[in-house]
Amino acid sequence: MAMEGYRGFLGLLVSALLVGFLSVIFTLIWVLHYREGLGWDGTALEFNWHPVLVVTGFVFIQGIAIIVYRLPWTWKCSKLLMKSIHAGLNAVAAILAIISLVAVFDFHNARNIPNMYSLHSWVGLTAVILYILQLLLGFFVFLLPWAPLSLRALLMPIHVYSGLLIFGTVIATVLMGVTEKLIFALKNPAYSTFPPEGVFTNTLGLLILVFGALIFWIVTRPQWKRPKEPNSVLLQPNGGAPEEMEGSMAMNFGNMDKSDSELNSEAAARKRNITLDEAGQRSTM
Amino acid sequence: MAMEGYRGFLGLLVSALLVGFLSVIFTLIWVLHYREGLGWDGTALEFNWHPVLVVTGFVFIQGIAIIVYRLPWTWKCSKLLMKSIHAGLNAVAAILAIISLVAVFDFHNARNIPNMYSLHSWVGLTAVILYILQLLLGFFVFLLPWAPLSLRALLMPIHVYSGLLIFGTVIATVLMGVTEKLIFALKNPAYSTFPPEGVFTNTLGLLILVFGALIFWIVTRPQWKRPKEPNSVLLQPNGGAPEEMEGSMAMNFGNMDKSDSELNSEAAARKRNITLDEAGQRSTM
Repeated sequence: MAMEGYRGFLGLLVSALLVGFLSVIFTLIWVLHYREGLGWDGTALEFNWHPVLVVTGFVFIQGIAIIVYRLPWTWKCSKLLMKSIHAGLNAVAAILAIISLVAVFDFHNARNIPNMYSLHSWVGLTAVILYILQLLLGFFVFLLPWAPLSLRALLMPIHVYSGLLIFGTVIATVLMGVTEKLIFALKNPAYSTFPPEGVFTNTLGLLILVFGALIFWIVTRPQWKRPKEPNSVLLQPNGGAPEEMEGSMAMNFGNMDKSDSELNSEAAARKRNITLDEAGQRSTM
Repeated sequence: MAMEGYRGFLGLLVSALLVGFLSVIFTLIWVLHYREGLGWDGTALEFNWHPVLVVTGFVFIQGIAIIVYRLPWTWKCSKLLMKSIHAGLNAVAAILAIISLVAVFDFHNARNIPNMYSLHSWVGLTAVILYILQLLLGFFVFLLPWAPLSLRALLMPIHVYSGLLIFGTVIATVLMGVTEKLIFALKNPAYSTFPPEGVFTNTLGLLILVFGALIFWIVTRPQWKRPKEPNSVLLQPNGGAPEEMEGSMAMNFGNMDKSDSELNSEAAARKRNITLDEAGQRSTM
């Protein structure tokens, strides 16, 4: 299926993949070259799984999961398949995030370092809990076929909003974590004397921020949204109706090659959906 | 003018104002009660202006500037007036952010502490520079009447995206700053022993995050967007055309009380704008 601004999309997608992949490589270099390496023995080796798993799962894989519907090569795949991939990637990210927490709690307990005192830990644990709730909500409401359309319409804008909010919060938490670790670990020479590890890991922080910015741009471009299939109700017992409901999301907009009549019928659909959407707004109060 | 879901909007607006105001109050309590107070003498008293000015200007005032078009009481005001208020609030926030940088550089220089070694400083200075560029771009392209419509259409989606990205980055930077300051300042008792200042300032961090989440929700609800005035070209020499151009933004959606014919003419307008929007996408490559 043709995508408007395809070359722009491709360039940004390749950039996002490159920057995300580089972030993972930088994290590995950080823990393997500058820090103690990796292990599972209650020492710093075990702690080091924390940044590796967070950047790999909670940043990179979550970022890919967010934009997976936008890949134009998947537009011929069923919505149900794409939902399963979206849910599957997010589930993998959640599992890696949980293991990353086990690593840091194990390390703290073995070294008698208190848990959960820092702002990083407060925000990070909240993000993991909200992410798991979001995953469960998505699974029961959008992936399983039993939720009524009205509930899906009500929850879709909240699902999209929470997803992006959690992703942004995770990135903020990573930046706090990098800050904490560099202050704790860099003593001689100190962080303030610009040692190579400090400069290198600051650069890792910037890469993660750029990755988030690229994902945020890709996912908020209306013309790169997966098109609605007019006959999707007939083709996909599970996929049709929620697609129509996504018409009530903020990030939906028409495609270049649509005819006027299609756009006009969309306008009518919008008017219908607005009532459902309004119910969604009221439910957030 | 009637707003769809007005009570929901009002509840969220009051919550945002309350949480934003509380964040400023918490910052003042932090520096006046837990820290050394305020002054302008190169000591910690001067440093303390840094968090106060950042939270007041770069977080609270910037947040209000972002949602100012969404206040339904202003929908009868001219677009030019609202743009001036939007630009004015952002200019105040920029000035406070710059003074907050002067405070911290002065403090570092007086105490021979190196500047610009931390991830907080790298991301924070980048955010201030991008914010000033965004302000200048907004002033010359959207506020002054001379920019051609095609340029406004091209830059509007980028302006909206950058604005939200910078706002999110500022919040992430504040959370890093709180983390840094608590680790440096809380030695006896240490941050890790849950001293009152640590718990209090972590709570401040959470408040700032919740403020950001509320602003992000309010600004991404399509039904709370300032409506386009059909005769705006006649009424406002400066305001009409760009409003139409904002139809190409991701966050634009129709109002409840619009007639079908209005929605259909919007659909046609969308089709026209998509071409301009596509040009916008290509320009980002």
